[in-house]
Amino acid sequence: MKWCRFYATDGSIHFGIVEGEHIVEVRGSPFEQYEETSQRHALSSARLAVPAMPYNFYAMGANFRKHLDWANQRFNLKIGVPKAADMGYRSPSALIASGESIIIPSDSIGPVQYEGELVAVIGRKAKNLSKDEALSCVLGYTLGNDLSERTWQFSDRTMWRGKNADTFKPMGPVIETELDPSSQDIQVRVNGKLASEYNTRDAVHDLATCISRTSRYVTFYPGDVIWLGCDGACEPDLVAGDVVEIANPSIGVLSNRVEHEVAA
Amino acid sequence: MKWCRFYATDGSIHFGIVEGEHIVEVRGSPFEQYEETSQRHALSSARLAVPAMPYNFYAMGANFRKHLDWANQRFNLKIGVPKAADMGYRSPSALIASGESIIIPSDSIGPVQYEGELVAVIGRKAKNLSKDEALSCVLGYTLGNDLSERTWQFSDRTMWRGKNADTFKPMGPVIETELDPSSQDIQVRVNGKLASEYNTRDAVHDLATCISRTSRYVTFYPGDVIWLGCDGACEPDLVAGDVVEIANPSIGVLSNRVEHEVAA
Repeated sequence: MKWCRFYATDGSIHFGIVEGEHIVEVRGSPFEQYEETSQRHALSSARLAVPAMPYNFYAMGANFRKHLDWANQRFNLKIGVPKAADMGYRSPSALIASGESIIIPSDSIGPVQYEGELVAVIGRKAKNLSKDEALSCVLGYTLGNDLSERTWQFSDRTMWRGKNADTFKPMGPVIETELDPSSQDIQVRVNGKLASEYNTRDAVHDLATCISRTSRYVTFYPGDVIWLGCDGACEPDLVAGDVVEIANPSIGVLSNRVEHEVAA
Repeated sequence: MKWCRFYATDGSIHFGIVEGEHIVEVRGSPFEQYEETSQRHALSSARLAVPAMPYNFYAMGANFRKHLDWANQRFNLKIGVPKAADMGYRSPSALIASGESIIIPSDSIGPVQYEGELVAVIGRKAKNLSKDEALSCVLGYTLGNDLSERTWQFSDRTMWRGKNADTFKPMGPVIETELDPSSQDIQVRVNGKLASEYNTRDAVHDLATCISRTSRYVTFYPGDVIWLGCDGACEPDLVAGDVVEIANPSIGVLSNRVEHEVAA
């Protein structure tokens, strides 16, 4: 089952269920009670919104060995594989939907790079989950692009600007509820050309481990998202005019054009 | 003018305006349109909620010299004064109101310490603010206690557990709209005894500078909060049974009891 959020003609945002070429509009949301309405919208002409607005926006960093090897070499770092699954935070206000533009701030030094990731969307309130029951709190999965301005990422005290500038967190297009997060193929294409491909089975800490450990200390809420990190290199560096796509066979394609901010 | 959020007898949460010993219940919120109702509630018997639920929860770390000097000595660190105002993130789900209990996880190694802080509550959407106009986006000010489990803070890759475990972010009691953030006296009392006192005039980066720089890259939204850091030492270390109070003459007292989690 595929959930989406979309804009109605009056500008309001509704949840919908994707069925073939149509969106079935629902009243309510997948996080509470909902019912299908009689409204149908053509998927091809619908404007999609970010598929969930998180209360807490978590990100697993440093969770794939080949990505760390690449980053350590390219940026002369010495980041090791973390012993345990430690979450980081991202900013909900950086989220944009598939089809919306990534705006690189005018004073960016760069490079600006994609990180194509699987994203878990939490479906219910949960705390103290065992590893066996951890995935039961997940509603489904979508895709994310953890855009990173590497100069700021390494020069600033935190990632507030390097990874959380406005528009730096594309997420979508839909939430797929039937999917095994431990064996997903993730492709990144830049201007239609394959740039990166990896499988989530190579994660250092799998999602169940990550949710179980985190939930020992932190309550998860409906709509919270967990971005799972990426593997391999993140090249070519992005420039204005590029179209970057994150793709998975079950979820679909998260597509965003890159633009450069016009200086104020 | 003082804004609060409080629980009605049916468990629903409403905004209210504090007038003397009473809360005037309002329809709406300070972030949009509101109107006073005829309902009055005794402040002394009201159960207060967190005064704003942020969309983005920002924190200025390392923003006071005497706090850095103390932390560097006590924990053998070498944290310098940051050249520019770099925000960090905290987790909205860690927020609790004045009067609610701080629960230290059963496997905490400690020490657990308070950090008493002034908090700015954003009142309207804002981007690209000059330093002169920066404070115009602030609705008002409240108090926060940036509880910190120091072993986890320094051992984990991020502060997800050390500063964001459930209940680790007391905030309140009310939002005071008439207040100069650059000259506020902040006191911390533990079990009624003065433990720490400083003035926000000693901040390395003042709030206007911080908002202006951040807003160059990030849009602020109504309800977002910015915690401004603390000065000086954070002792004595907290233990179960302690009552910790953060106090300011204009805002009032944020008071929370410390408890130790009973192991599951």
